[in-house]
Amino acid sequence: MSKEITNRSEDYSQWYTDIVKKAGLADHSAVRGCMVIKPHGFGIWEMMKDQLDSMFKETGHVNAYFPLFIPKSFLSREAEHVEGFAKECAVVTHHRLMNAPNGGGVVVDPDSKLEEELIVRPTSETIIWNTYKDWINSYRDLPLLINQWANVVRWEMRTRLFLRTAEFLWQEGHTAHATKQEAIDETLLILNLYAKFAEEYMVMPVIKGVKTANERFAGAVDTYTIEALMQDSRALQAGTSHFLGQNFAKAFNVMFLDENQKQEYVWATSWGVSTRLMGGLIMTHSDDDGLIIPPRLAPTQVVIVPIPKPDPAIDEVAEKVMKALNEKGISVKYDTDRKKRPGFKFAEYEMRGIPVRLGIGRRDIENGQVEVARRDTKEKSSQPIEGIADHIQNLLEEIQNNLFQKALKFRDERITSVDNFDDFKEVLDTKGGFISAHWDGTTETEVKIKELTKATIRCIPIDNKLEDGKCILTGKPSNQRVLFARAY
Amino acid sequence: MSKEITNRSEDYSQWYTDIVKKAGLADHSAVRGCMVIKPHGFGIWEMMKDQLDSMFKETGHVNAYFPLFIPKSFLSREAEHVEGFAKECAVVTHHRLMNAPNGGGVVVDPDSKLEEELIVRPTSETIIWNTYKDWINSYRDLPLLINQWANVVRWEMRTRLFLRTAEFLWQEGHTAHATKQEAIDETLLILNLYAKFAEEYMVMPVIKGVKTANERFAGAVDTYTIEALMQDSRALQAGTSHFLGQNFAKAFNVMFLDENQKQEYVWATSWGVSTRLMGGLIMTHSDDDGLIIPPRLAPTQVVIVPIPKPDPAIDEVAEKVMKALNEKGISVKYDTDRKKRPGFKFAEYEMRGIPVRLGIGRRDIENGQVEVARRDTKEKSSQPIEGIADHIQNLLEEIQNNLFQKALKFRDERITSVDNFDDFKEVLDTKGGFISAHWDGTTETEVKIKELTKATIRCIPIDNKLEDGKCILTGKPSNQRVLFARAY
Repeated sequence: MSKEITNRSEDYSQWYTDIVKKAGLADHSAVRGCMVIKPHGFGIWEMMKDQLDSMFKETGHVNAYFPLFIPKSFLSREAEHVEGFAKECAVVTHHRLMNAPNGGGVVVDPDSKLEEELIVRPTSETIIWNTYKDWINSYRDLPLLINQWANVVRWEMRTRLFLRTAEFLWQEGHTAHATKQEAIDETLLILNLYAKFAEEYMVMPVIKGVKTANERFAGAVDTYTIEALMQDSRALQAGTSHFLGQNFAKAFNVMFLDENQKQEYVWATSWGVSTRLMGGLIMTHSDDDGLIIPPRLAPTQVVIVPIPKPDPAIDEVAEKVMKALNEKGISVKYDTDRKKRPGFKFAEYEMRGIPVRLGIGRRDIENGQVEVARRDTKEKSSQPIEGIADHIQNLLEEIQNNLFQKALKFRDERITSVDNFDDFKEVLDTKGGFISAHWDGTTETEVKIKELTKATIRCIPIDNKLEDGKCILTGKPSNQRVLFARAY
Repeated sequence: MSKEITNRSEDYSQWYTDIVKKAGLADHSAVRGCMVIKPHGFGIWEMMKDQLDSMFKETGHVNAYFPLFIPKSFLSREAEHVEGFAKECAVVTHHRLMNAPNGGGVVVDPDSKLEEELIVRPTSETIIWNTYKDWINSYRDLPLLINQWANVVRWEMRTRLFLRTAEFLWQEGHTAHATKQEAIDETLLILNLYAKFAEEYMVMPVIKGVKTANERFAGAVDTYTIEALMQDSRALQAGTSHFLGQNFAKAFNVMFLDENQKQEYVWATSWGVSTRLMGGLIMTHSDDDGLIIPPRLAPTQVVIVPIPKPDPAIDEVAEKVMKALNEKGISVKYDTDRKKRPGFKFAEYEMRGIPVRLGIGRRDIENGQVEVARRDTKEKSSQPIEGIADHIQNLLEEIQNNLFQKALKFRDERITSVDNFDDFKEVLDTKGGFISAHWDGTTETEVKIKELTKATIRCIPIDNKLEDGKCILTGKPSNQRVLFARAY
């Protein structure tokens, strides 16, 4: 089974695609750039979604739903936004098909042309702020803390499953506030929430920072980001939280009467994470035998395989173990399929990344034991059936911690400080990872470095320490290092 | 507050719209026919979704996600399907916008025309069966029991919030089976699941039945339905479950190797319920003062209002009551807003349909009591604080039962048997509701009756008893009664 996956060292990109397809996560569809998320992949996404959703709700946010379509003219309202989002998108121009006059299928009915074209949302700031205009009158209506789970479409020329697809699933938060400070606080609250989710659930270490002007969301005053490092030493932008200032309020004329009876423009934030996180999860932990799912996000945490197949004695032990695990809130599946051999099942669950596998055979039962195999290290051990639930509960926590420590070590070893452009290029080409270097603060230099090396400024870390230095490209003075990397 | 809602007796349609808007459920958007689902409405939809989702999962189904877009040619593959769904739909023809040559916004880039137009899914049988072709090879791959939660678009000329909108949210199950009987069993399993959900959670009584050929889903062999009755005595189709035979397997060439090594076409079902259920929920229970939410679907089951405003003594009692309610799994909100008066809050929660309201004032506390008001009957009573959680738990169950019994009585009083066309028309115009009558079994007669009366055959009830009779229109022989109604 593991033979089916290309080794990372041979072809990293093919390894990734193999895992996505063979672990049953996603597949290409008949529609260019659109993917099918398969049940196992969707199950992991549901775990992520449920956890994020409860974190949003705990911090006072509520869900709502806004239209899939955006009138074309809305995109032009905010000057920078249109530059960023009105380019590659799906445009609905007609609303009817008719039978082809000469038979042979259906054609677009030319009489059904829309007066104004509709864009399939690439992001929803415009339609939402157009709605908020009706919802906000006074300071009593603020803050509005709304999130939506939705599909969005950005027409991409080069797509990769989960990482870059024309249609993807995401959540987008859109909040409205009475003061600038409150909006900034919200932006950072969400940044920290995303970082906590990434590190405690996905066990994917991230660096929190702010984007440069050049990498900002189109229409934002400031874009905050969490940046992770993949196993090929490339960075992945995993989530962004934007302070939008009053840009969208002005574009859609959303004002409120403040406590002093004065009309003011509303302050805004928006923030999102998407199915791209699935790509991050895969590339942070998986190995040449398949997917590795962190226990806290595994739809099935434990699988029990009867050896060689189910029988009444094994069933009885399995039922008992399942009951004990369920009582601790551990999800478990007993594989009673008689058509497949244990070896085949082992390889399949390894491929699919199930954190813990229990093997139960007749002899194990006679010895009062079961075989416990953990997915992350592949270690196997025999454990007494008595107290097995406690053992597995601890083991799941240990796996969760082990995965994080391993990823953290990998990431930390790949943050390199350099002080000149030759070293910069060499580190990029050999070691990769994040490079901490001085930059003169201009978009011109940033763009030039990208042209020369394909490296971008991932972020200016949140709690960056100030130090005097010289820009690696221009030699101009700089007062802090920023993080560069080649990125997805 | 209740003054803002039009009375049902004055203008039923306006009453419905008033509730949807003023209870904070949904609103029209800037995009023709598309609605915005507001936080309170979405909260109720989330409760419905979570409950249905767990019922699907308990019966072995898993979730997945398929593309938003369907290549135009796919719709033509199944002959009847194209007639039903390829007419009014959103057609994507281009994938890029560009700055208008003369300034002033963006225009569609003519160079970005797609080779083949894409249709925004009106339903996903075609794209899913095109995918299943790759997933199904042998009987070992069956059954496939997959559901998806998604948005779909059907271009509607006349729209009504929740009941008929261009874009709506729904779930669509698509299952694949090795045998005809297994597919039929699945169709009925889901029909019963829908009926259970409607009656036990929405407390909306439904009649289970099968549709006539004329009312069948385009591409189905048999369409099963649950039909409810609204307060204006019109019927609402609340959910459908289709036995698709081998129609889609043949259209997309999906075959499997059976246990005898023979290639066979796969058997299929599909089934769905949508945000239309929100319309059913509203029109089954609500009154002239606003929405009434059945307790099992209320995102907030109990609200506590301090009288006249929060203070330390009231806060202490409220905290204690909340803790006791939470321990029983009852959701509760303590309204600490100091800007609004109690009377305003009472009216607002009544409008929004919160099942139980507790009022706590200083004097109540001195008497060791709180005031309990139930939304359904508007009854108020003083109850001892001691044991209040038990009282409310029982009260919520009582409300749930009371709503069902009331709706059941209303519905049962409006099922009328008639034996001739004059009576049929008179009952339709006076009493409305379901009319049980003989029909000669032809589409011709069914269509004629619809033309003459706007009544349609809602269904042939599942456990219909056979009896000889004569068609109310043609007098031709009939062996069973069917249910007619004017419907949404």
